[in-house]
Amino acid sequence: NGNGANTLTFGLIPADGIGREVIPAARQVLEALPSQYQVKFNFVHCDAGFEHFQKTGTALPQETIETLRNDCDGALFGAVSSPSHKVAGYSSPIVALRKHLDLYANVRPVVAQQSKTASGQPVDMLIIRENTECLYIKKETQTKAEDGSAVAIAERRITEHASRRAGEMAFQMALNRHSVREKRSPGQRMWKGLPKVTIVHKSNVLSITDGLWRETIRHVYDTNATYRKNVLLEEQLVDSMVYRMFREPEVFDVVVAPNLYGDILSDGAAALVGSLGLVPSANVGDTFVMGEPVHGSAPDIMGQQKANPVAAIRSAALLLENIGFPAPALAIYTAVDDVLAEGLVTPDLGGKATTQEVTDAICKQLS
Amino acid sequence: NGNGANTLTFGLIPADGIGREVIPAARQVLEALPSQYQVKFNFVHCDAGFEHFQKTGTALPQETIETLRNDCDGALFGAVSSPSHKVAGYSSPIVALRKHLDLYANVRPVVAQQSKTASGQPVDMLIIRENTECLYIKKETQTKAEDGSAVAIAERRITEHASRRAGEMAFQMALNRHSVREKRSPGQRMWKGLPKVTIVHKSNVLSITDGLWRETIRHVYDTNATYRKNVLLEEQLVDSMVYRMFREPEVFDVVVAPNLYGDILSDGAAALVGSLGLVPSANVGDTFVMGEPVHGSAPDIMGQQKANPVAAIRSAALLLENIGFPAPALAIYTAVDDVLAEGLVTPDLGGKATTQEVTDAICKQLS
Ligand SMILES: CC(C)[C@H](C(=O)O)[C@@H](O)C(=O)O
Ligand SMILES: CC(C)[C@H](C(=O)O)[C@@H](O)C(=O)O
Repeated sequence: NGNGANTLTFGLIPADGIGREVIPAARQVLEALPSQYQVKFNFVHCDAGFEHFQKTGTALPQETIETLRNDCDGALFGAVSSPSHKVAGYSSPIVALRKHLDLYANVRPVVAQQSKTASGQPVDMLIIRENTECLYIKKETQTKAEDGSAVAIAERRITEHASRRAGEMAFQMALNRHSVREKRSPGQRMWKGLPKVTIVHKSNVLSITDGLWRETIRHVYDTNATYRKNVLLEEQLVDSMVYRMFREPEVFDVVVAPNLYGDILSDGAAALVGSLGLVPSANVGDTFVMGEPVHGSAPDIMGQQKANPVAAIRSAALLLENIGFPAPALAIYTAVDDVLAEGLVTPDLGGKATTQEVTDAICKQLS
Repeated sequence: NGNGANTLTFGLIPADGIGREVIPAARQVLEALPSQYQVKFNFVHCDAGFEHFQKTGTALPQETIETLRNDCDGALFGAVSSPSHKVAGYSSPIVALRKHLDLYANVRPVVAQQSKTASGQPVDMLIIRENTECLYIKKETQTKAEDGSAVAIAERRITEHASRRAGEMAFQMALNRHSVREKRSPGQRMWKGLPKVTIVHKSNVLSITDGLWRETIRHVYDTNATYRKNVLLEEQLVDSMVYRMFREPEVFDVVVAPNLYGDILSDGAAALVGSLGLVPSANVGDTFVMGEPVHGSAPDIMGQQKANPVAAIRSAALLLENIGFPAPALAIYTAVDDVLAEGLVTPDLGGKATTQEVTDAICKQLS
């Protein structure tokens, strides 16, 4: 690896709405990485999304799955639009992609020196969202009650297997991210004391499913001396978690949550840092990683150069970090932080800069 | 009714932890209502809770249900503790009570002149939480996968019936609360324009269950000329809802959500007003209402006079309001607001006042 650049092939799946604006921005930043980082890129465009469904009848072509699986070292996903009415045959391609590629954890760092709360305390959380099950298995049926009215049932599935690997990832990342953070932002707030993992659940109501989730992660911890010694373990009911996250965001480090709670928590956490347009995520499996901004497809601002490219650009960095390239990832994070600190920001953050201007500034900062 | 006082019989179910401190506070305030309001009270103590379960093996005695159903005009519930490990045979009495008494909507007003957000915008929301189904039906099973590892399944049930009545209540309250508010707090922010209902769902993933929820409520609206004329209807995915609630709480009026989302949202909304200790709720059915503070049993502060009695006291007022006694309810709301405005507050709000001091001050203000 020392002699000559690595060439990485990334699948790009812009999908819908502003996904088509922020993914090209992320690509431009990756291409602007100076040669000292020894990474070069091939990009492969892949189709998916609601608009693709409307044109072709399929939201996630088999070809996309195969290209990603066989030809790519990683991927970047944009955003999907949700139909405003039920559309027969349509099913979210992002949920399907996570499943097909077994990207079992969605990793969402939420960081700001000053949270957008009344206290302005810092926030520096890593939300790990289980990514394959819970209500996202989409096993739903509809029947009729005796009086003829409709009754719908969805299955929520929690397995020991998925809980265990989400837990393992949480403890590993709790241990790891401290060293990464120390390298990354020397002046920044560091966690005082031991790394901490907070298990989110609602086992006071869902004693069997969330009970299994919680007990399994506790068991991972209890049976691993390294974790016990170096990581604190706490838990929080999901309702209290949302409350506490807004009252005292500074007390959370790594947070691990079942799929739906993780979805809700990470959007909520985005409000703490001021905009969904800032928060990246990585869908992580054992053999593949796909970066994905936490924001949606925002059709209302599409085509107006208003989309904040930061979440997608940070997602590209998070992708690099998670496939073993921390140095260029760090360079991108730093360039983004610098441009934000200058106040060059899109309208979601109260600024006037365009998508292109922010992207260009980040590229310039990198070089 | 004009000649002489009404005597109301209220069941008091303090249950666990600080429930035993805030329910007596609410009782004291009800008893302090001046005679001009023409209401008198009988109180009946009812057992329930985790501690009761530990003593007797039952968390909700049949006698409690029957006393409430047969002898009471309303009830006030305190809070329940959740066991820190799975306990065989234990099941949350509050969930069971809501079901047994068919209290199908949990109504949670969240009000503050200045929200605890960076912008400090006002918040004046009414969250209506469906209270009988969703994952709260507690149909859970556990089996084993082929490799012997555990697999747990929970059923999430959404019915047309429950969705319709939750929707009806949302539109009714959207119409009603504007007149109540105008009477109640003349100087306060008023909703500009029409009353608004926001349907919360996640039908981009749960197209059948949340699809039914959303379509049913839309249908209630579409088929009622009064609603169409006087109420705006919007919808919001639950993840975006949490985000937007913290970014721009001022844009929400009445919010209607399935059980679990409603649980999470209302705790989150409590952070907007500064403390869970401020937020009341009423469990409302067609024939019975039970007030209940949104906070939990907080065993960590029990017995120290630190519990904020305001949520329970406001829940008593909300109970009165919902069983047809708006005048004494308004008197209590106003007395509470006055005492809070004076800065006489418990430690959750940064003050030093005790539970008893706050309660006494509210009683004094009333007289
Ligand atoms: C678009 C939707 C299916 C998706 C999800 O709920 O996972 C989105 O909200 C996300 O967080 O990536
Ligand atoms: C204690 C618990 C079962 C309850 C719930 O989830 O309904 C509580 O959180 C509430 O909001 O009243």
